[in-house]
Amino acid sequence: MSTGHGLVALLTDFGTRDWYVAALKGVILSRAPRARLVDITHDLPPQDIVAGGFTLAAAAPCFPAGTVFLAVVDPGVGTSRALLAARADGRWFVGPDNGLLAPSLVRARSRTVVTLTNRRYWGTSISRTFHGRDIMAPVAAYLARGGTLRRLGPVRSQVVPWPIPSVRERGGVVTGVVVHIDVFGNLITTLEAARWLGQYPEGRVTLRYRGRRVTMVSSYAEGRPNECVAVVGSLGLIELVVPLGSAAARTGARRGDPVFLRPDR
Amino acid sequence: MSTGHGLVALLTDFGTRDWYVAALKGVILSRAPRARLVDITHDLPPQDIVAGGFTLAAAAPCFPAGTVFLAVVDPGVGTSRALLAARADGRWFVGPDNGLLAPSLVRARSRTVVTLTNRRYWGTSISRTFHGRDIMAPVAAYLARGGTLRRLGPVRSQVVPWPIPSVRERGGVVTGVVVHIDVFGNLITTLEAARWLGQYPEGRVTLRYRGRRVTMVSSYAEGRPNECVAVVGSLGLIELVVPLGSAAARTGARRGDPVFLRPDR
Amino acid sequence: MSTGHGLVALLTDFGTRDWYVAALKGVILSRAPRARLVDITHDLPPQDIVAGGFTLAAAAPCFPAGTVFLAVVDPGVGTSRALLAARADGRWFVGPDNGLLAPSLVRARSRTVVTLTNRRYWGTSISRTFHGRDIMAPVAAYLARGGTLRRLGPVRSQVVPWPIPSVRERGGVVTGVVVHIDVFGNLITTLEAARWLGQYPEGRVTLRYRGRRVTMVSSYAEGRPNECVAVVGSLGLIELVVPLGSAAARTGARRGDPVFLRPDR
Repeated sequence: MSTGHGLVALLTDFGTRDWYVAALKGVILSRAPRARLVDITHDLPPQDIVAGGFTLAAAAPCFPAGTVFLAVVDPGVGTSRALLAARADGRWFVGPDNGLLAPSLVRARSRTVVTLTNRRYWGTSISRTFHGRDIMAPVAAYLARGGTLRRLGPVRSQVVPWPIPSVRERGGVVTGVVVHIDVFGNLITTLEAARWLGQYPEGRVTLRYRGRRVTMVSSYAEGRPNECVAVVGSLGLIELVVPLGSAAARTGARRGDPVFLRPDR
Repeated sequence: MSTGHGLVALLTDFGTRDWYVAALKGVILSRAPRARLVDITHDLPPQDIVAGGFTLAAAAPCFPAGTVFLAVVDPGVGTSRALLAARADGRWFVGPDNGLLAPSLVRARSRTVVTLTNRRYWGTSISRTFHGRDIMAPVAAYLARGGTLRRLGPVRSQVVPWPIPSVRERGGVVTGVVVHIDVFGNLITTLEAARWLGQYPEGRVTLRYRGRRVTMVSSYAEGRPNECVAVVGSLGLIELVVPLGSAAARTGARRGDPVFLRPDR
Repeated sequence: MSTGHGLVALLTDFGTRDWYVAALKGVILSRAPRARLVDITHDLPPQDIVAGGFTLAAAAPCFPAGTVFLAVVDPGVGTSRALLAARADGRWFVGPDNGLLAPSLVRARSRTVVTLTNRRYWGTSISRTFHGRDIMAPVAAYLARGGTLRRLGPVRSQVVPWPIPSVRERGGVVTGVVVHIDVFGNLITTLEAARWLGQYPEGRVTLRYRGRRVTMVSSYAEGRPNECVAVVGSLGLIELVVPLGSAAARTGARRGDPVFLRPDR
């Protein structure tokens, strides 16, 4: 990263209609002129920490080591919520301490997290309403130029957790939730296929959603038209899909809906 | 392209809300760290090969030779549909063999097309649901680094055609279709102005759409308010427009509607 | 800029569904192969000079000196409206002379504006419908490569003004307008806080909007739930906001609504 050609990947709930994303980019390019910018998304539902945390954790592993992720979903701007920078598995993260970074950090094999307190690395003028531009973008630019995490502030051991329940296993029944509904209407669950399906003999487990049994298939094309089926999605999570259709529209799904895995008798 | 600074231009139906586009970008940048990425669009209607093929063929000629186009509209993911890479008029194309690349390839003066069979150039782990990330993005990165088309798989001579009828001429009447309705509500037809208008004496031809005669004008500003007129659009195709308004809203147009050119008697 | 690595920032009303933005980018990269492209927004309401001018003027100061801003909101394409290039406070601007560039230019400490007349710097073929691609993008590429403004055409002293009224002060009452409603539903006014609040003793001024008094607070978090309050926003302008909600939805605001500042007796 010391070449200063660092990649900075951005994720916000700013939308693309306003100048807010451009403000982040302009600040980064003013401070790290050779940085290369990539958008993850700016179309997160406003102030949605769950969607933001999920999307960041899904995207980040695809990027090369050294990438700086600037994540700004910040309903608490102007309150006392902390701002964080972290290094996890060779990648950098900058964002508010509200759960947004948690799914990316908790799964990391190695990580260091600091609280942003050293104003030397912030912008020159700090508004009360736009810390993405005034604090987090300058810090991301500093890291993209090859900066040192420890200079940004004191190390901390805890971060605010992501507000999605862990998968529970009780009495032989595994309970996950629909954690994300994607643009195709696929329902992505918290159930990691390798972990939860691996323990059962082939095909000896039943997936239930909204009171119905859902057939497990191995690709989108295998289901019958208009039938909701389950696949192992591209994140390794169990997904409920309607091939060539929308499982969300078909089932009326809501994020947070429980999904059950039960061994067959 | 051997500098490894290759341009990779992306076109998908993934939308911008999810991490799917970022996954493609992260994979490309992991494998071709100096590649430069440009978005054509990610807002194609889901699984719409017609819109995807049209948009790619409209955009590609503006880009410099050597650009790699990664086009992913892939309703058949997980089925036996082939994946392609091609070189056409000095530009590279990677995408599924479902018609999406056809309009860009058929118009090319020179082209070579291969089927992606050589797993050496694919990702290390291939899901059943996201070949954009697992196969096509690694291949695009390989080409952006200066790779050799022939190593990717065997040459083929045919590709699945684009499902839009050719312009017909019968009994002096030329029949095209509305092939695209753009964001301004302009109706873009398959009628190439240079070819079809050039054969008539100036002004001695009538354009008819939905049973009405449409006046040909030479710029958007020439029509009367709220009147649907025809212009030679920026692609050299005849377009039906309502100056400062939407021809789509005004006429209730649908893609595929026929448009007729008839010589005046 | 003579390195040819110039930044080009784009702002249009083209939307992201079509190939229009890609056409601009392809043309720029064909003519300035090492240019680096940044999107400000392409989601401006169609043909909305007010939103375009506001957004460009809000974003531009965040970018480094030398950035070229290509702004295309051009309802008059094909008419006799002029096209402009300008240098203002070390940044470059290219766009139509319809008010779009005015807010960025009038606030500049130093500026030079020219009319684009020298066809040597235009594209080779000029359509009647897409001057962004055919004239403005080639000119932006020329500037990004280190070009000279004066070669593009004659200097001019006036540009078409931005169609938003200046703040008025009469009989002790200051009248501004809601100039922009952002994606969060915040109402951004033309009232510069430093100028208009600075002249009153602390707290001795009342802000009125739609017949109601609006409390001034210092951050989004300070208001009560569902209450519309005023803050000094990140542009230094007075904004009306509903913390964690939408002031636009709460008040039924429209752009152009007057906002009044009145000293307390």
